[in-house]
Amino acid sequence: MMMQRLRRSEEFIRFGCESLINLRPNKNSVPRSVSGFVTHYDTKGKLFESNVGNHYNTHRCLGRNLGMLQQYKCFGSSSASQIERKPLFSSLDSKDVSSFKEILGDKNVVEDEERLETANTDWMKKYKGSSKLMLLPKNTEEVSQILQYCDSRRLAVVPQGGNTGLVGGSVPVFDEVIINVGLMNKVLAFDEVSGVLVCEAGCILENLATFLDTKGFIMPLDLGAKGSCHIGGNVSTNAGGLRLIRYGSLHGTVLAVTANGNVLDMLGTLRKDNTGYDLKHLFIGSEGSLGIVTKVSILTQPKLSSVNLAFIACKDYLSCQKILVEAKKNLGEILSAFEFLDNNSMDLVLNHLDGVRNPVSSTENFYILIETTGSDETNDREKLEAFLLKSLEKGLVSDGVIAQDINQASSFWRIREGITEALQKAGAVYKYDLSLPVEEIYNIVNDLRRRLGELANVMGYGHLGDGNLHLNISAADYNDKLIGLIEPYVYEWTSKHRGSISAEHGLGVMKANEIFYSKSPETVAIMASIKKLLDPKGILNPYKVLPHSLFSH
Amino acid sequence: MMMQRLRRSEEFIRFGCESLINLRPNKNSVPRSVSGFVTHYDTKGKLFESNVGNHYNTHRCLGRNLGMLQQYKCFGSSSASQIERKPLFSSLDSKDVSSFKEILGDKNVVEDEERLETANTDWMKKYKGSSKLMLLPKNTEEVSQILQYCDSRRLAVVPQGGNTGLVGGSVPVFDEVIINVGLMNKVLAFDEVSGVLVCEAGCILENLATFLDTKGFIMPLDLGAKGSCHIGGNVSTNAGGLRLIRYGSLHGTVLAVTANGNVLDMLGTLRKDNTGYDLKHLFIGSEGSLGIVTKVSILTQPKLSSVNLAFIACKDYLSCQKILVEAKKNLGEILSAFEFLDNNSMDLVLNHLDGVRNPVSSTENFYILIETTGSDETNDREKLEAFLLKSLEKGLVSDGVIAQDINQASSFWRIREGITEALQKAGAVYKYDLSLPVEEIYNIVNDLRRRLGELANVMGYGHLGDGNLHLNISAADYNDKLIGLIEPYVYEWTSKHRGSISAEHGLGVMKANEIFYSKSPETVAIMASIKKLLDPKGILNPYKVLPHSLFSH
Repeated sequence: MMMQRLRRSEEFIRFGCESLINLRPNKNSVPRSVSGFVTHYDTKGKLFESNVGNHYNTHRCLGRNLGMLQQYKCFGSSSASQIERKPLFSSLDSKDVSSFKEILGDKNVVEDEERLETANTDWMKKYKGSSKLMLLPKNTEEVSQILQYCDSRRLAVVPQGGNTGLVGGSVPVFDEVIINVGLMNKVLAFDEVSGVLVCEAGCILENLATFLDTKGFIMPLDLGAKGSCHIGGNVSTNAGGLRLIRYGSLHGTVLAVTANGNVLDMLGTLRKDNTGYDLKHLFIGSEGSLGIVTKVSILTQPKLSSVNLAFIACKDYLSCQKILVEAKKNLGEILSAFEFLDNNSMDLVLNHLDGVRNPVSSTENFYILIETTGSDETNDREKLEAFLLKSLEKGLVSDGVIAQDINQASSFWRIREGITEALQKAGAVYKYDLSLPVEEIYNIVNDLRRRLGELANVMGYGHLGDGNLHLNISAADYNDKLIGLIEPYVYEWTSKHRGSISAEHGLGVMKANEIFYSKSPETVAIMASIKKLLDPKGILNPYKVLPHSLFSH
Repeated sequence: MMMQRLRRSEEFIRFGCESLINLRPNKNSVPRSVSGFVTHYDTKGKLFESNVGNHYNTHRCLGRNLGMLQQYKCFGSSSASQIERKPLFSSLDSKDVSSFKEILGDKNVVEDEERLETANTDWMKKYKGSSKLMLLPKNTEEVSQILQYCDSRRLAVVPQGGNTGLVGGSVPVFDEVIINVGLMNKVLAFDEVSGVLVCEAGCILENLATFLDTKGFIMPLDLGAKGSCHIGGNVSTNAGGLRLIRYGSLHGTVLAVTANGNVLDMLGTLRKDNTGYDLKHLFIGSEGSLGIVTKVSILTQPKLSSVNLAFIACKDYLSCQKILVEAKKNLGEILSAFEFLDNNSMDLVLNHLDGVRNPVSSTENFYILIETTGSDETNDREKLEAFLLKSLEKGLVSDGVIAQDINQASSFWRIREGITEALQKAGAVYKYDLSLPVEEIYNIVNDLRRRLGELANVMGYGHLGDGNLHLNISAADYNDKLIGLIEPYVYEWTSKHRGSISAEHGLGVMKANEIFYSKSPETVAIMASIKKLLDPKGILNPYKVLPHSLFSH
C-alpha cells in the first residue's frame, strides 16, 4: 500500500514535468493539487491593468483579505504583499508570436491553454501567473535568439525547468513569456577519467543519475524532486539537498555554465581555472534573473560500493549536536548524510502516511538518519556499528537501528522524505527554510512553539549536518492572526542570529522583499547593479530575488 | 643535511613575511634571491616619467633587449610586454602621507627604504615596483578609510599579503601604495560543531593550521608557501595546492569574505545561504582587483588520524592516467592527494638538492605520490597496499613503496615540493601553470620537448588529480629565441585543447594580456564592467588580471 502511494506520488510529480517535455496536450497533464489547499485559485483575484500594448495583463492579486488569495500572503511576505506589473514591459502581440515561430518552428511555440495552465502554476499550486505563451527552445542558439528578441521588444520572460521550486521562482508573476528548457535534455559528454559531465540544462536530475550509474559515477547532489527537477534549475537555484554535507554546494562542483542573451560561453570542463573573475558563480543561485543557464558542466563522483543507513533516537537536541560532531570525527570520510527530525514531524508522518512505522521501539524527542558511503562494505559497517555503540554508551543515543537491506533503507528515508507530503495532508502549512548556527537550530522551533501555543503545530527537521532547518508550521487553515505571529518574527529571529532566511530554496517571489534580513543594503545595492549590468531592461525573471523597491519607477 | 637545508629554506620564506608583520626594520629582512638569477634588478631599466603630480614615477621597463630587464619579458608575455603608468592616477604627496598617518598612526605608515624594497619585490625577485609607501592597517575599518581616501585622491593601491604569488600580482607595477594586511592576523572565532573558522585576512596559513590542529581540525588547503602566505591572499588568488582533490576549491569552502572600500560585509558563517547573488565568489580569485579581503570565514575539516603516502613509478603516462581513475574508484573516500612528476623533474631534484634520493630502486619515466587520509589506520593501510598490489599485477606500476613513518613521508614530499627550488638552482626557468584535460596533460610536454630540442630541458609535474600541469622549461639563460619558441605556442596549445592558461596561480601582471586564450571576449567584457562597477576609478591593483587594452585611454 505504501509503495503504491509512493509510486503514485512520484508519477504525479514526474508527469507534471514530462507533460512539458513530451509536449503531450493531455488532460491528465494538469496536475491536481497535492494538498488541495488552493483549488480555485485561477478564478478569483483583483486584476491589474496594464496600459502598455494592446492587451490586458492580468495578475491574481497578492494583497490581503481577498478571499482565497489571502493565501498568497500567507506564503509570501507579510511586509510587502503587493506587486504591480511593471508598465514598461511590453505586452505580447501576434507579431511577437510569429517572430517566435520563425525562430523555433510552430510546434515549439505553445499557446494551448491547457498546457499554459500547467506552465503558469507551480507544483504546490501556491503561485500562478497568466502567461499567454510558452517557448520551447532546442538549443543555446535558440535561447539566445529568443532573449535578443525579447530584449529588443522589452518583453519580460521567466525561465523554467522542472518547475519544482518552492518560492515561486519558476512561474510567471504576470504575463511573462515562459521559456521552458525541457527540450534541451541531452548529455553532451562524459569523461570517465575526470568524472566531468557536460549536459544541457533541461536534463532531469534522475536521468543524469541513471546515466552516470551505468558509468560507475554519481551526481554530487540528490533531491526529493529528482524525478522532475532539471539540472539547469538546480544550478540556477543552487539546490542543496541530501549530499551537500559530503560533496559540498554546487559552487564547488559546477565547473561551468553557459548563459545568455549574448551567449556567455563559460563551458569549460576544467577543475581549476584562475583566469579572471569566475563569473559562473553569478549564475549559480541567481534564479534565472541574470541569464538562462543552457548547458552545465559538473564534477561527478565515483560510485562507491558500500552504503549504510542508521536511524537513531535521541532524548534532546544537545545530544543531536554532539552526535553530529562525533560523526564528523569518527565517520569522517564516509559520512554522506546527517538528517534530523523532531517528534512532531515523526508523529505527522505516522499519522498521515500509510505504511510508515517508527523504526525504533521507543518514542523520543528527536530522530537522526546517518548515512555512510564508502568503498569497503565490512569495514564501513563495523565503523558505523562501533560509532552507534559508543554513542549509546555515552548516553547520546537512546535507541538505534541499522538498515539491513535496501528496502529497510528506503523505509527509513521514506520517513524523512515523507514529511513534506504529510504536512500538505495535515492542512495549511507555512514553510521556512533557514540556515542557522547548529547550536541555535532548535531554539527557534522552541521559541516559535511557545509563541504560537495551541494555534499551530510547529515542526523542525532538515539537513542538520549543513546547519539547515526546515521550519514548518501546520495549522487547520491560513489566517491573519497566525501569519502576524510568524512573520516577521521568524525572519527577525534568523537575522538576529546571523542566519539566512533561505538556506537552499532561494528567494523567488516569496522572499524577494525579505532579502535585507540576510544581506546588507550595500550588498543588495551591488546585486542590483550587477542585475542592471547583465539585464539592463530587467526582462529576466522580474519581481524575483531582488526587492521590488529597487525597481519601482 | 637535508633537514638543515629545508629549515633554512623555510626560515627564509617566513622571514620575508615576518619582517612585514613584526615591523622589524632589519637589514636581514631584505630577502636574498633564492636562485640569484636577478641580482641587480633594481639598478637598471628604463624610466617612465609621469607628468601627473610632483613626483617622478619610475618603473623598470618591461620591454625587450634591455639588459637584465629582458628577464621580465621572459616570464611575462611575448605579445604585450610594455605597460605604461596610467597618467590619470595621482602621485603621492606629503599631504597624503599625513592623512594616512592620521588614519593609521605614524608607525603603520612605512616610508623606510629598506622595508619598501622588500615590499616592492616579489619573492622570486621577478617583479619589482617603485612604491614609496606601505600602509599597515589593523582592521577592516582602517582598510576602508584608506581606500576611501585613495579613491577620492585617485591614488592607485596594491593589496599585499604574504607576497608569495607567482604572477606578480602582489607587488606594485609602478608607484601604487602598498596596503599590507599582515597586522590583521587574528583568529576571530572557531566553531567546533560546524568546523567554521573566522579570521582576519593577514593570518598565515600555517598558523591557522597549527591553531586548528589543537582543536582537531585541518585547513581545506595546503600549499608549499604555507609558512608565509596569508589566508586573504589565498582567497584573493583562489589558491589550489595539494588538498584540492579531496576538499575542492576555495569557491566551495570559503563561506564569506569582507571586502571594501564601502565595507561589503558578507561575513556569514553559514554553510548554505541562497539569498541573492553570491557576491563573495567575485572576490575569490580576483587578485585584489575588486576589493581587499579583510576577513575570511572558511569551512575546515576534522583531522583524521590515519595518513598514508605511497611513492610509485610508472613506465608511461597512460598508466598514470589509469592509476588515477583506479585510485578515485578504489581509494575513493580516503584519497587526499594525487601528484605526479616526470623523470626530468626527478633528475633535476636529485642533481640539485642535497640528501634527496629516489625512493624506488628503478628509474622510470613517471613517478606518482598517492596520499590517503582516513580514520582507520589498519584498514586504510591495507586498502592502499591492496590497491598498489593490484596496480602492480596489472602492470600499471613498475615499482612502489609506502612510507613507514613521518620522516619517510617527508622525504617523499620533499621530492615533489623541492622541484621549484631545484629549478631555480638549475638556471633560467620559464614557468607555466596549465589546466588541461587529464589525457592531454603530457602531450604538451612531449610536443614542447620536440619543439625545443637541445635548447632547453622541459619538465612536467603537478596536481594530476585536478588536471593541473606545472610545465617548466629550464635553460642556461633567458633568450629571445627560446621565449619566441615557447610563447605564444604554449598558450595557443592550451587554448586549442580548451585548457586554462592559469590553473591556480592567477593572471597577475604576467598573464593579464593573455586572458583571451582562456576566456571569450564577451566574458572579459563583463569582467571589465564588473571591475568598473566595483572600482570605478580603477585604483585597485591596476595593470593586473584584465588586459591593459581595456583600460587604455
